[in-house]
Amino acid sequence: MKGYRVAIVGATGLVGQEFIKVLEQRNFPMESISLLASDRSAGKRMFVTHQEIEVKETVPESFREIDIALFSVPAETSKYFSPIAAQSGTVVIDNSAAFRMTPTVPLVVPEVNAEDIKWHKGIIANPNCSTIQMVVALYPLHKVNPIKRIIVDTYQSVSGMRSTAAIEELTTQTKQVLDGQGTIPHVFPHQIAFNILPEIDVFLDNGYTREEWKMVEETRKIMHADDIAISATCARVPVFTGHSEAVHVEFSRPMSPEDARHILTQTPGA
Amino acid sequence: MKGYRVAIVGATGLVGQEFIKVLEQRNFPMESISLLASDRSAGKRMFVTHQEIEVKETVPESFREIDIALFSVPAETSKYFSPIAAQSGTVVIDNSAAFRMTPTVPLVVPEVNAEDIKWHKGIIANPNCSTIQMVVALYPLHKVNPIKRIIVDTYQSVSGMRSTAAIEELTTQTKQVLDGQGTIPHVFPHQIAFNILPEIDVFLDNGYTREEWKMVEETRKIMHADDIAISATCARVPVFTGHSEAVHVEFSRPMSPEDARHILTQTPGA
Repeated sequence: MKGYRVAIVGATGLVGQEFIKVLEQRNFPMESISLLASDRSAGKRMFVTHQEIEVKETVPESFREIDIALFSVPAETSKYFSPIAAQSGTVVIDNSAAFRMTPTVPLVVPEVNAEDIKWHKGIIANPNCSTIQMVVALYPLHKVNPIKRIIVDTYQSVSGMRSTAAIEELTTQTKQVLDGQGTIPHVFPHQIAFNILPEIDVFLDNGYTREEWKMVEETRKIMHADDIAISATCARVPVFTGHSEAVHVEFSRPMSPEDARHILTQTPGA
Repeated sequence: MKGYRVAIVGATGLVGQEFIKVLEQRNFPMESISLLASDRSAGKRMFVTHQEIEVKETVPESFREIDIALFSVPAETSKYFSPIAAQSGTVVIDNSAAFRMTPTVPLVVPEVNAEDIKWHKGIIANPNCSTIQMVVALYPLHKVNPIKRIIVDTYQSVSGMRSTAAIEELTTQTKQVLDGQGTIPHVFPHQIAFNILPEIDVFLDNGYTREEWKMVEETRKIMHADDIAISATCARVPVFTGHSEAVHVEFSRPMSPEDARHILTQTPGA
């Protein structure tokens, strides 16, 4: 076999384009690549490893001859197409929140729980961006000295919205403020230029936002540690790319900063 | 007596101008107002309640006929002039870090420990900006249910640098980034435009920055609670004015969010 037949679902989006870039950089063994998107983007042409490829509309038949499909689409779209793809023998790696907390779907961060892909039934979910970077740093410490409590406050960039419209809104509003003009929010609930928004996604009945609650639930699932007490406060900041986090951890036993630093320097990716 | 003879020391600075604005808004009873600054700013003319006043250089003799002096100058300048002013009978209210942790100087947030001004010996210090807003919110809760532990992560605006140069640096760098140009940091240690800097003031030997350690020490002094465990992470964010904080508190006894909200809504200023 020369390589895998790969599909990118949501190919024209911010994350879809990043999928393509990473596949190219890693020289991922591909026999073919299909670029799939909504009907709005169908017909666009994109380059993958110097080859021009037409974007096709995603339809149930799109997955017939596909080994691996990388999904980055809204959760509702993934909920519809991922099971269809899995049914036809495709391994789906889904970037949305659609299946993350489904007990039969592994939620995987390769640096933490790569072995969980063994029990997949066609769909493998990957977590929220702010969860990923936190568990990569915390898991090597947790293995040595089990974590009892996590308090995390985030500084999340607009790229986390996974839309070019979010990037444009920060750019546009920033220019408007510098020009002394008013701003009108579209993508974000309030002005994001020169402002901090402690509100990412909707508020749940428990008082947390959905983004915050994702960090709680997903961290427990990935680290196989249902009893860790976790509180997250997620804030959007006027930064284009790159999430920052202040993470406070209580371990089972005392741990010196030196020991923690030593463990982290020994850990690839952390 | 018609009113107080007031001096603003550092009158041309960001905070000095704010002092003047607040005195005007409150209709503070003043017999006279002296505007003092460094020799660089001496000779400038500013308006206070429709009266044009010349800024004078601060010299030891400046305080001879002054009842109250509001200082917002670098700590070294305050260390020199505040005791001189106090000696000549002036009550100094100092915005710098010069005397905050001096045992004989009260460190006061009116909403929290106004009674501490009773034992002043000529100098009254006011705390770091990020400390003030935190203790105003925490003290009414602490009175009801003593606080054992505080974890705070901040999102501090560039106005906290108390210099127009900091505001200008955010403006200039933002334009440069939008124009695709590089930036050169002057006021901040790294680019502040579209960036988060987890570094405010210098790093101390204990691993905290001086800004973070101020929050620890000043909070304990203001709340008269030396045994509260406090950890602060201070980050500068690309926002012009207004500090935000995520504050996590452990009380002596369980406290429901409803109870906490009820107490805070009953508290002026909180």
